[in-house]
Amino acid sequence: MDFCIGLDLGGTNLRAAAIDQSGKMLDKIAGATKYTEGREAVLDEMVTAIATLRDRHGAAGFRGIGVGAPGFIRIQEGFLTNSNNLPYLENFPLRDEISRRLDARVILENDAKAAALGEKWMGAGRGVDDLVLLTLGTGIGGAIISGGRLIRGYVGMAGELGHCTVVPNGNPCGCGNQGCLEKHASATAVSAMARLMHLGDALSSKDVYELARQPGEAGDKARDIWRVVGEALGIALATLVNTFNFPLYLLSGGMLPAWEFFAPHMLRTVERRSYTYRANQTGTRIAQAALGNEAGLYGAAYLPWLEG
Amino acid sequence: MDFCIGLDLGGTNLRAAAIDQSGKMLDKIAGATKYTEGREAVLDEMVTAIATLRDRHGAAGFRGIGVGAPGFIRIQEGFLTNSNNLPYLENFPLRDEISRRLDARVILENDAKAAALGEKWMGAGRGVDDLVLLTLGTGIGGAIISGGRLIRGYVGMAGELGHCTVVPNGNPCGCGNQGCLEKHASATAVSAMARLMHLGDALSSKDVYELARQPGEAGDKARDIWRVVGEALGIALATLVNTFNFPLYLLSGGMLPAWEFFAPHMLRTVERRSYTYRANQTGTRIAQAALGNEAGLYGAAYLPWLEG
Repeated sequence: MDFCIGLDLGGTNLRAAAIDQSGKMLDKIAGATKYTEGREAVLDEMVTAIATLRDRHGAAGFRGIGVGAPGFIRIQEGFLTNSNNLPYLENFPLRDEISRRLDARVILENDAKAAALGEKWMGAGRGVDDLVLLTLGTGIGGAIISGGRLIRGYVGMAGELGHCTVVPNGNPCGCGNQGCLEKHASATAVSAMARLMHLGDALSSKDVYELARQPGEAGDKARDIWRVVGEALGIALATLVNTFNFPLYLLSGGMLPAWEFFAPHMLRTVERRSYTYRANQTGTRIAQAALGNEAGLYGAAYLPWLEG
Repeated sequence: MDFCIGLDLGGTNLRAAAIDQSGKMLDKIAGATKYTEGREAVLDEMVTAIATLRDRHGAAGFRGIGVGAPGFIRIQEGFLTNSNNLPYLENFPLRDEISRRLDARVILENDAKAAALGEKWMGAGRGVDDLVLLTLGTGIGGAIISGGRLIRGYVGMAGELGHCTVVPNGNPCGCGNQGCLEKHASATAVSAMARLMHLGDALSSKDVYELARQPGEAGDKARDIWRVVGEALGIALATLVNTFNFPLYLLSGGMLPAWEFFAPHMLRTVERRSYTYRANQTGTRIAQAALGNEAGLYGAAYLPWLEG
């Protein structure tokens, strides 16, 4: 049976899967990435995972490799730029090196963009050719699929939706801007707001979610935080809806459990702020992604099929 | 010689041109549109202009008709929705009616989107496949070309960039939002600011441009207005640069003469607010469109060539 291998070089885990053309996951390998051991260790781990899957399922049916990695991707050159997690892979010919070691075709893509492709192929975006994905984690990433293809931008930096301005005089961001979406709606922002509101000095977004489920004053404060998150997401999504008029906007990532607390504010804000949304409310879906942290794995494996 | 006919149904003028495949304008007809005389008068005027050009240049070389019109376009159905200037053309089968009367293929497109195609084909976007156009007039329109094709959105409403939020608690807009770009950076916004700043009750953006060229207090106020315009455009452009990472962002419309006064603030704001811009400053151009009010005419004529 024909299959491709997708590899997801995540923040803490390296995962790989063999997936056939129908999107069926045949096999999966997961392990903690040896990030701290440097480039050679990570390369060996990647190659070993892929080779293991290929050997298990037969080289005859093997059709290619997709790799999702954190950072900007120069798609033509096949290397990463600006990867905070993997600095030793920046400007290194990652695609060609993996390709050489395994004697196989490799496509390298940004992890959020791979996740969007995964959702389009086998998740919440199945059958949809035009969609936007927002990944809500410690930061906020994004990806745009138009006509079934990723918008990459000319140096692979398209989709930096976490740095859209939602509050012109808002919190300063490491990117140099103020009031970026991710300064008001990421897990990091939730923790910072919890600290400012004297809920606790080291609460995670999950803690703030749990608090929001409680009655009383602390619960009220936690729910206020999720309202702020929802309104910031709503401002950004209203602009995205006005910009693209796409039928689908997906949200994914570790903040999704708090959907019940932020989504009503988010949707109310989009409805108020986007005429385009109001004019097409039944046809414009803002919804949760479906594949969780396997989206990037599906998307990576989809790349060789998609790129032909 | 092969040619297409482009027709631009503008706010006050109807113009049509015969343009060959190399982008050479062979002939042009311009006149005041009989908007107030109703649908039949406008249809007759359109058909007469096109038929005149076709007869002059020979039916043998005639390859099709493109029409740019103000409003949202249902591209599959070939009609306009939400056209403030031409309400009697809303939901009317405009494409098919023109096609029937002239026995020719017609493609209908939004006027700002046609202008973007015109700039891409023969203007400031020549040779560029990925660009964004902002049209700065009484309102602010927009269009996005990705991979050489317009992003239309699923009911033709993509590119409503004038309604991106730049100031969350800013001026209320007729679209239901607050702080839309066009409430802070359109010609209408410039006039409103001039009134608020006691520069005059009925100043046009051209008047405010002339004032800005004068020394003294009134000139200072006028220059302040252009600073506000530049900063609002800068916020929106920073988000667009972060979203698309395209190489080109064009501005067109009646406000361009004031470029010298708003552009420095606009560019400084983009530089501060967009990491993507700073990382690719030499490759990211924010520039003036080149074709003026003929862009839509070129774009309309390009449509039959483009859509094959």
